[in-house]
Amino acid sequence: MTDDVLLAQTTRHGIVESSHYGAAIVMDAHGKTVFAAGDCATPIFPRSTVKALQALPLLTEGAADRFKLPDAALALACASHQGEPEHISVASDMLTRTGFDYGVLECGTHWPLDATSTRALAATGQTPSALHNCCSGKHAGFICLACTTGQDVAHYVRPEHPVMQTIARTLQDVTGVPHTDANRAIDGCAIPTWAIPLSALALAYARFASGAGLSPDRAAAATRLRNAIASNPFMIAGTQQFDTLIMQELAPRVLTKMGAEGVMIVVLPEQGLGMAIKCRDGGVRAAETAAAALIARFAQIDNSPALTHFMRRPLKNWNGQVVGELRASSLLAQNFLPPEPMH
Amino acid sequence: MTDDVLLAQTTRHGIVESSHYGAAIVMDAHGKTVFAAGDCATPIFPRSTVKALQALPLLTEGAADRFKLPDAALALACASHQGEPEHISVASDMLTRTGFDYGVLECGTHWPLDATSTRALAATGQTPSALHNCCSGKHAGFICLACTTGQDVAHYVRPEHPVMQTIARTLQDVTGVPHTDANRAIDGCAIPTWAIPLSALALAYARFASGAGLSPDRAAAATRLRNAIASNPFMIAGTQQFDTLIMQELAPRVLTKMGAEGVMIVVLPEQGLGMAIKCRDGGVRAAETAAAALIARFAQIDNSPALTHFMRRPLKNWNGQVVGELRASSLLAQNFLPPEPMH
Repeated sequence: MTDDVLLAQTTRHGIVESSHYGAAIVMDAHGKTVFAAGDCATPIFPRSTVKALQALPLLTEGAADRFKLPDAALALACASHQGEPEHISVASDMLTRTGFDYGVLECGTHWPLDATSTRALAATGQTPSALHNCCSGKHAGFICLACTTGQDVAHYVRPEHPVMQTIARTLQDVTGVPHTDANRAIDGCAIPTWAIPLSALALAYARFASGAGLSPDRAAAATRLRNAIASNPFMIAGTQQFDTLIMQELAPRVLTKMGAEGVMIVVLPEQGLGMAIKCRDGGVRAAETAAAALIARFAQIDNSPALTHFMRRPLKNWNGQVVGELRASSLLAQNFLPPEPMH
Repeated sequence: MTDDVLLAQTTRHGIVESSHYGAAIVMDAHGKTVFAAGDCATPIFPRSTVKALQALPLLTEGAADRFKLPDAALALACASHQGEPEHISVASDMLTRTGFDYGVLECGTHWPLDATSTRALAATGQTPSALHNCCSGKHAGFICLACTTGQDVAHYVRPEHPVMQTIARTLQDVTGVPHTDANRAIDGCAIPTWAIPLSALALAYARFASGAGLSPDRAAAATRLRNAIASNPFMIAGTQQFDTLIMQELAPRVLTKMGAEGVMIVVLPEQGLGMAIKCRDGGVRAAETAAAALIARFAQIDNSPALTHFMRRPLKNWNGQVVGELRASSLLAQNFLPPEPMH
């Protein structure tokens, strides 16, 4: 903990209310550390931040071509979506192409993360299916992969299933960290998740940013996924979500992906940089704020409304009155921190 | 930050995923510190943890008697409720007794925090009113107070309104900390909130626990509020909420109240102790976990299913599979930490 640094703070009427600590690292594909702060060595669970890496086999194994997956589907395979109608439609279409329906998904079911979509579903007397699970696009991709490689789809979430073995090998190759039983746990959507150093996560996304350090087929897959994500930012998250708002404004120069428990990755293709952030307490809001600051700084963007908003986000009460702000630490933002919150 | 201590951690397959740091203090009404860890001196915003203190004037000024408020209403005045039908009914009844309806409330409107209640509302085509605001019981109490003391109810949330002046004086007296413009901010429900040291918050609730150090009328009011809360734990929060679950099992021996941004207070009347916890990052889950540990330790309770659950709370994925746990730090729990999580 003492190795960690201040990522972001909330203030109320100028008085600090809450403080988030953690680590952040920016790397290039050759393993050079461009910036590091906090404990970047202790393994962390990257959670949903590795989705774009988990999607590489969709392309390298030929599943995307076999099922003629459109870019929106490739983006949804990399997404933690909010269960909005557009997301459900694409996830459902992915499964239809394989001849399956949502009954094949083993990710579990929850109400849409988007409150409006949940209320709309309830208003029409419906209940959610596994398609509404924020990981349904990724899981639909696993089904496409299983069908392409001739595997039985049953129990595709288990570590011993060939689909998960392919995922594990891919993650191991791209991050350079062994993915074994020793560092394996179970993710929110039932598939394995492996704890790796934050530095390895940043390195993997530096490789993803440029293709450098990847095999030719994976480099080509990374290019195609970057393009799919950049042209479908809504698919990656949804209404009012950080990833979507940032990429709607800044893709393809900037790609981002949040993960549960305060993890965030950023891809800067023009600079060939990968970035990874872990808010130690699991606070997603702080990971977003820190990411905005480091994007501004390392992509040298000082005129982005979205970045400005997330670097100094106004906090409002139930009457819509601004009562404070969530602000990136000056250690991270340096002179890119806006002088005032943008209300 | 370096003064703070580990409150709670989440683990996934035994590997630490997230860590929460903060401060906790246990005091008696004479100002003796029974336990302290972390920075208990820097002012923090107590948020909703002071609701029982804000309710004292309801009794001392005669509003509860004038409007014959039942214990459920007194409890709701101290609550951050989830907007469930039972809460709405009591809040509505409080206002009816004054001749007003929800239109008088200035707390703002939001959908019920309880997801089932939100979906039920949406399913019947309704939208929420200010009654669904988690603070509507407290605000209904303010209306009762304004009517009793002959004040115009308009703008009752403003610092200069006589009702808020009464609240400020009460908080200042009971905590022993000046409540001025300098430490005042605006709370989520639009009324003032004042930053005070965590130690002052614990001291105030030690006084509330026993009446010691309070004027006779406030001591009597505290006794009546403790009884009202203890006999209505559902009113204080709602379905599956920490405060409700703990008090359904342990009241009147243990009273608890959460506040936004990771604050928690505990009242132990038998021991005459007050306790206050601030999770520095604002994490409510960690404040709950830490509170469970300190309750077990300082009330010497080693056979409570609710405390055991919250000291080592299993974390499940969307399939209901246990994938990790949220565990109190051993610094806080010591030998009261259960050997295994209770699944």
